[in-house]
Amino acid sequence: MLARVRASFDRQGMMTTLGVEVTAVEPGRVEMLLRHDDRFTQQHGFLHAGAVASVLDTACGYAAYSVMPPEAAVLTATYTINLLAPAAGERFTITGEVVRGGRTLVVCRGEAFADGDKRPFAVMQATMTAVFDRPGIQG
Amino acid sequence: MLARVRASFDRQGMMTTLGVEVTAVEPGRVEMLLRHDDRFTQQHGFLHAGAVASVLDTACGYAAYSVMPPEAAVLTATYTINLLAPAAGERFTITGEVVRGGRTLVVCRGEAFADGDKRPFAVMQATMTAVFDRPGIQG
Amino acid sequence: MLARVRASFDRQGMMTTLGVEVTAVEPGRVEMLLRHDDRFTQQHGFLHAGAVASVLDTACGYAAYSVMPPEAAVLTATYTINLLAPAAGERFTITGEVVRGGRTLVVCRGEAFADGDKRPFAVMQATMTAVFDRPGIQG
Amino acid sequence: MLARVRASFDRQGMMTTLGVEVTAVEPGRVEMLLRHDDRFTQQHGFLHAGAVASVLDTACGYAAYSVMPPEAAVLTATYTINLLAPAAGERFTITGEVVRGGRTLVVCRGEAFADGDKRPFAVMQATMTAVFDRPGIQG
Repeated sequence: MLARVRASFDRQGMMTTLGVEVTAVEPGRVEMLLRHDDRFTQQHGFLHAGAVASVLDTACGYAAYSVMPPEAAVLTATYTINLLAPAAGERFTITGEVVRGGRTLVVCRGEAFADGDKRPFAVMQATMTAVFDRPGIQG
Repeated sequence: MLARVRASFDRQGMMTTLGVEVTAVEPGRVEMLLRHDDRFTQQHGFLHAGAVASVLDTACGYAAYSVMPPEAAVLTATYTINLLAPAAGERFTITGEVVRGGRTLVVCRGEAFADGDKRPFAVMQATMTAVFDRPGIQG
Repeated sequence: MLARVRASFDRQGMMTTLGVEVTAVEPGRVEMLLRHDDRFTQQHGFLHAGAVASVLDTACGYAAYSVMPPEAAVLTATYTINLLAPAAGERFTITGEVVRGGRTLVVCRGEAFADGDKRPFAVMQATMTAVFDRPGIQG
Repeated sequence: MLARVRASFDRQGMMTTLGVEVTAVEPGRVEMLLRHDDRFTQQHGFLHAGAVASVLDTACGYAAYSVMPPEAAVLTATYTINLLAPAAGERFTITGEVVRGGRTLVVCRGEAFADGDKRPFAVMQATMTAVFDRPGIQG
């Protein structure tokens, strides 16, 4: 399962470009590290919500993927993100966790933390789909 | 108003990095252009939802900003994105439109279209906040 | 299709209790009428968001159901509602419309209007699932 | 604070009609009890998502209210609900909890549990607004 997550993650140009690292994978939970980078800021100089959302979405996606059957591919159906404070800091810990999985849909929660802060600055509620036998969609 | 939107947009490292262009701005509506780029793909080779979400969020943000008082800055409070189909194509037209604005919250809808497709492949419902007199937060 | 929608609607205790009427059904679009009722208010005397959300959810559900194959049942996977103004008024027109349908997921938008107001006081973005062959789940 | 929550709750016609009880209130967290009732079902005989959403929304609203200044009134700006399984059971425990509060927005999470089940059958991510000095809006 770990190998499948890493193989799929390594194919994501977006994660490479953002410089994201996978720091933990267990069944139903994934943790990633994102760093501040001036290439990905919004107009006030903080990290753009889009960068944070990309990693939260990816962490939730792999948390879901980690509990799907090996032949499934994972796609994001929908998510809601709340931005509780600006993404101010240097290192952002981003987690995704399965709340409950059904036949084809897996619901996850994500949280983003800046530096040593214990309170998240962003939270996500995401719905992931397991896709089977769709040409060109693997992992 | 147009000048304020463009000045703020130009300060977004994320938009420069993604190569996004503002193609239309009118009060309550903004349109942007995003191109496929292998640096921003997900594991199946399509554009990452995070890239699409970044631009939808930005288009909704500036649509909201365009109807706020000049002294306001705009922040995203929360959004929900639905991904209706993979972001397959070369050129993506992304729109943000105000549904209704209140005292401090402005609600917007965003849509993303691939190449000449008339049906959106992604839709967003976003809640933007007007921020006043907060140090370091302008535009 | 109209008959299927009405048969399913008539089985909803909640819709009977709220006194909701189906005022229009066409493929991919449903319109309903909800009236103010002191039994369903929130603490400020306006209709409770929960009553409005119930009808928006139902309108979106049947809009989705109207484009599903006859053997499918419809379930709500998730929705986001924005409350743009209090539900002040006597008669509320509530619409649900399909944005785009896929294999098992259909995404809809809902809008709620008070009396003759042209601007919605609530909007919804909803994800509906088609369910097949699940015991006890029909319509 | 407890007195303010209960006084406001008691003014909600919707909560009385649904027969909801407040079972716990502490700063930042509220718990409520909802029972199955044939008046509030959907087409398959389970409790309607709208009934569950009403109580989740109310629990999140009062969790937010419990951390707001005494002169504030609380309104729901937006929420996202995921329905993970049908609301099958007799007694539903519904919780609302503050994730993080800002100047005017407080973000909460809600969970709904059927009978003795430890896994939620519905989860909510909600954004509540503190309202000050608005005529007719108290509590």
